Amino acid sequence: MQNFDYSIRTTLHFGKGQIEKLGQEIKKHSDSVLLVYGGGSVKKNGAYDDTVNQLKEHGIRFVELSGVDPNPKISSVREGVRLCRENKLGAVLAVGGGSVIDCSKVIAGCVGTDGEPWNLVKQAHYDKVLPVFCVLTISATGSEMNLGAVISNPETKQKVGTGHPDMVPVCSILNPTYTFSVSKKQTAAGTADIMSHTFESYLTVDQSAYMVDKFAEGILKTCIKYGMIAINEPQNYEARANLMWASSNALNGTLCMGKAVPFSVHEIEHQLSAYYDITHGVGLAILTPNWMKYVLNDKTVSRFVEYGVNVWDIDKSLSPFEIAELAIQKTRGCFNNMGLPATLGEVGIDDQYFDEMAEKAYNPGYQYTFQPLTKADIKKIYRMSL
Amino acid sequence: MQNFDYSIRTTLHFGKGQIEKLGQEIKKHSDSVLLVYGGGSVKKNGAYDDTVNQLKEHGIRFVELSGVDPNPKISSVREGVRLCRENKLGAVLAVGGGSVIDCSKVIAGCVGTDGEPWNLVKQAHYDKVLPVFCVLTISATGSEMNLGAVISNPETKQKVGTGHPDMVPVCSILNPTYTFSVSKKQTAAGTADIMSHTFESYLTVDQSAYMVDKFAEGILKTCIKYGMIAINEPQNYEARANLMWASSNALNGTLCMGKAVPFSVHEIEHQLSAYYDITHGVGLAILTPNWMKYVLNDKTVSRFVEYGVNVWDIDKSLSPFEIAELAIQKTRGCFNNMGLPATLGEVGIDDQYFDEMAEKAYNPGYQYTFQPLTKADIKKIYRMSL
Repeated sequence: MQNFDYSIRTTLHFGKGQIEKLGQEIKKHSDSVLLVYGGGSVKKNGAYDDTVNQLKEHGIRFVELSGVDPNPKISSVREGVRLCRENKLGAVLAVGGGSVIDCSKVIAGCVGTDGEPWNLVKQAHYDKVLPVFCVLTISATGSEMNLGAVISNPETKQKVGTGHPDMVPVCSILNPTYTFSVSKKQTAAGTADIMSHTFESYLTVDQSAYMVDKFAEGILKTCIKYGMIAINEPQNYEARANLMWASSNALNGTLCMGKAVPFSVHEIEHQLSAYYDITHGVGLAILTPNWMKYVLNDKTVSRFVEYGVNVWDIDKSLSPFEIAELAIQKTRGCFNNMGLPATLGEVGIDDQYFDEMAEKAYNPGYQYTFQPLTKADIKKIYRMSL
Repeated sequence: MQNFDYSIRTTLHFGKGQIEKLGQEIKKHSDSVLLVYGGGSVKKNGAYDDTVNQLKEHGIRFVELSGVDPNPKISSVREGVRLCRENKLGAVLAVGGGSVIDCSKVIAGCVGTDGEPWNLVKQAHYDKVLPVFCVLTISATGSEMNLGAVISNPETKQKVGTGHPDMVPVCSILNPTYTFSVSKKQTAAGTADIMSHTFESYLTVDQSAYMVDKFAEGILKTCIKYGMIAINEPQNYEARANLMWASSNALNGTLCMGKAVPFSVHEIEHQLSAYYDITHGVGLAILTPNWMKYVLNDKTVSRFVEYGVNVWDIDKSLSPFEIAELAIQKTRGCFNNMGLPATLGEVGIDDQYFDEMAEKAYNPGYQYTFQPLTKADIKKIYRMSL
């Protein structure tokens, strides 16, 4: 088990009605906010009205930035920075899912830092970060409780991860009822994203952080159980609540304590979203089982056996490779059952950019995974996914 | 799943050599500390020397309070308060296990509060709490990452839980090698304590916080696996590290998020320690399987089935009561294998004070457990444990 430092600064208020605590939390830090949201779903699920009521009730001045896209674009960041500076706003409040939160974090970092935003994103260089607050409306990215953000630049076909310790939201409101209206497709994609974060942390060579890996198995079981329930019964509170809490725990550091974690598939997927603007969770669902097949070998099989037996309850008396292959099949089956695509063809992607994408997806961090991936390996995984 | 608020303020530095960060962490808050420890084991395991080196290196003035007992006494608190006031100390640094940390927390609370310490403890009333720091040397209570403390008063035969949000340690150093020299008996008792914290959170009527309960199962499996390894191979780093991280997670709030948690057995055990000064974890190991037997009924059996199947891998095709009874037997067997006593007789306790103890152990919080316990029920559980 490796050394680690633990410090989670986010205060969470989880549950129905907890938005009542938002105004007082913001007031501790600022009298004004940039209110950031996406395409308008927050006006249907109640989150926007509840948020605005809180701001008004507590006399918090606000300016709106709406229309933040999925795979949030650097153009939205630029616009947010301009609004914050012009209106001298002291904090950024995201109402939405991972894209809105990521965009808000990077706005918060660029406002107080000299430099062109896209350069700042690429260098992850921020001098000062405004406090970030969050009202979550989809369970997926975990951005509500971590320091990371991913921003896309359509002009350069790049999707870049960035972050700063001060980008961790100061306070996030997690009300599962705001996710009742999330579509079946987005619920499935969000669940696949949570599962992918968990796989990235769980499927490693180092198995000495045993307890942490048991937590990972618990999150996977939670997604498998409640993903389907939420898809079939969108207003099932228990399902929405468990998925929401799983989303935060899958990427707030809990699953990385004591181990080096590579996040291989995320880098491979980011190129799909960068080139084709597909939903991140959909790309992950297509790639993950193929990546699993590709890295299954004598060295990695024992971890797949644990996964198969502990998460999928596969008969322990089968041979290790039988268990591993069954576990990978069940992973694909799980995504299929949730209605997610299984091939790149289904989302309109062919092999045109595979070389470029493999080039960009290569990451030295892959050394920590089961087996280091070369650019050629990544290209093969794209090809397996056609 | 119930509403909850999440805010964990402790920064942890986990692993070998991490004590190097202690001085700088203290310096952010104070130039002086009361250095609290117990009977001197910290001088053998290296924690005392490493700590003093850090204090000297960073020019932090310190005064020592040594000799804090297991089941820490109010007299130690009074002495610590006197030393802090006389020497105008700005923080309290615990080097030890749960008893030393608990004592340190309460000293930190009583220094800045007018009133007789025992009254403050009972009322859990503290106006101002000095920052608390911690170098952990035994995996057991989780006190290194929570707001609670338990203090004993031998004169009144009382053992009282107290606490304050500002008693949560600001920073804790968790170096598993400091626990290499913990005796087999104390390792077993500490592991039983971690398991008990987990049972208290896990074994409830409300099963809607599914993911949290999966985490609980993970902690139980960790204790079952690594408790025996640590007993047999005291210098096994992986075992000591997993137990240490389990100890913090079993009682830092993680297992209570989204559910009401009764902590029934702890109250029942506290009376044993208060009357007979036995090791807390030993008392818990004696009582817990009997409590389980006592509360096993039609309403609770389904949770015991989950426990048996998921934690002990018991054959699912057996009847629910067979599984539950086997799971309880296995719990007792686990404690037996670790060398823990199974009866009150083995630790010199007879039925002399059962009435008084049952009176004091009664807690209205029992409504949240499988079944409310009356004073008569508690007395029966004591009697089953003779």
